Amino acid sequence: MLERLREGSATASFNRWAGFHVVRAVEGECELRMAWRPEDMGQYSGFLHSGMIAALLDTACGFAAATMAGWSVLASQFSMNCLAPAVGDEFVAIGRVVKLGRRQIFTSGELHAVRNGEPKLVATATTLLVSTA
Amino acid sequence: MLERLREGSATASFNRWAGFHVVRAVEGECELRMAWRPEDMGQYSGFLHSGMIAALLDTACGFAAATMAGWSVLASQFSMNCLAPAVGDEFVAIGRVVKLGRRQIFTSGELHAVRNGEPKLVATATTLLVSTA
Amino acid sequence: MLERLREGSATASFNRWAGFHVVRAVEGECELRMAWRPEDMGQYSGFLHSGMIAALLDTACGFAAATMAGWSVLASQFSMNCLAPAVGDEFVAIGRVVKLGRRQIFTSGELHAVRNGEPKLVATATTLLVSTA
Amino acid sequence: MLERLREGSATASFNRWAGFHVVRAVEGECELRMAWRPEDMGQYSGFLHSGMIAALLDTACGFAAATMAGWSVLASQFSMNCLAPAVGDEFVAIGRVVKLGRRQIFTSGELHAVRNGEPKLVATATTLLVSTA
Repeated sequence: MLERLREGSATASFNRWAGFHVVRAVEGECELRMAWRPEDMGQYSGFLHSGMIAALLDTACGFAAATMAGWSVLASQFSMNCLAPAVGDEFVAIGRVVKLGRRQIFTSGELHAVRNGEPKLVATATTLLVSTA
Repeated sequence: MLERLREGSATASFNRWAGFHVVRAVEGECELRMAWRPEDMGQYSGFLHSGMIAALLDTACGFAAATMAGWSVLASQFSMNCLAPAVGDEFVAIGRVVKLGRRQIFTSGELHAVRNGEPKLVATATTLLVSTA
Repeated sequence: MLERLREGSATASFNRWAGFHVVRAVEGECELRMAWRPEDMGQYSGFLHSGMIAALLDTACGFAAATMAGWSVLASQFSMNCLAPAVGDEFVAIGRVVKLGRRQIFTSGELHAVRNGEPKLVATATTLLVSTA
Repeated sequence: MLERLREGSATASFNRWAGFHVVRAVEGECELRMAWRPEDMGQYSGFLHSGMIAALLDTACGFAAATMAGWSVLASQFSMNCLAPAVGDEFVAIGRVVKLGRRQIFTSGELHAVRNGEPKLVATATTLLVSTA
């Protein structure tokens, strides 16, 4: 499972650029990690850019879906709440399948910012994926 | 207005990396453009990565808010609908302020993929920003 | 079109209770009106209850979808922004189809509160409907 | 806590009409129950109307927020995923505070349909509330 997700992730040029690393995968759940790079990932205050927050959450959710439904799924809807400024040395995104339907997959995700080894929940998201098969 | 947004955008390392270009700005509205780069912006099917879609929409909405409320605002909530695969040579994001409140700013955004000069609506979003002042 | 929507609406017991009235319908667009009733539609401050706001927006969006795709659709995702307290004698909800896909329909809606004849935008929403056929 | 929420709920005419019953409340969490009434709560297929689903989720989330922040809060953003048709004799909504900030409160909610004593998760939601004080 872990290997298949890592291979899938490696085919996405953005994931390679960002350095997304799949560290854990079981059926219906996936965990990604990414190291902070101030030189190309920041917004105007120097926090992690909202696009990177969304990318981490959406990818973790999509990979959680892929553990149950394969790769022929695309996110149609993405909804994200930013609870606190995303400041850390490393970011950990966890995605989970909430409901696997015949046509649709509902997932939820959490993003933690890790600072001096301490994780802090900074954003949550839900995605709705639809089968493209 | 345009100059202030371009200067603001230049302070964000992610925006510089992505090549976001502010092409139009009036009170309550902003338009961004970005050239497609397959080598570091793609998802696993070679379309524009959802994180880049979110980044363009959230930034255009945030800049629209900044035209009315300055830079001391942060997005708390972001909701995005992906209508079609984001495939194009260039992407154009337009953000608009829907309601400027005392504590909150509601915005909406559209993302168009341009292919051979033809724009196509590929995603929409709404953001809710809160004053940090 | 108008007659078919009115007949469809009449089959929903909640719509009858609430007094939803379909006043306009063209392909991809629908307008609903509802009179305010303080005795059973209020939240704790006496504004229109969020559930009624959601019901009006979701129904207008669903009817807009029904003008193009018939009744075999169900809303999977609903996202709503409440811009201002919903205070009025009458409420007008307008739903529009943004994108009709093969499997999915994306819509958006606006809710206006009418007070002494003056409409005011109080909420917006998007819905994602999926074919159940 | 339970008494204060029941008194607050009783001031909302919609909650009285719907028969919302607060069955549990601790700091940051609240549980509501409502009996199904086919004669005035149904959509066109006879399932619970989306407006009622939204009302239950939004109210449970709002009450969870009220356990920590009092009544001077209003929901600005509401996002809901409908996982399955809402069919049951009774509905149970649980709201939880995810993050209590100075200006904003983030909550999440779950709606279960109970049929012959068996609960089933049919919808989830998040709300973002803002202090009106």
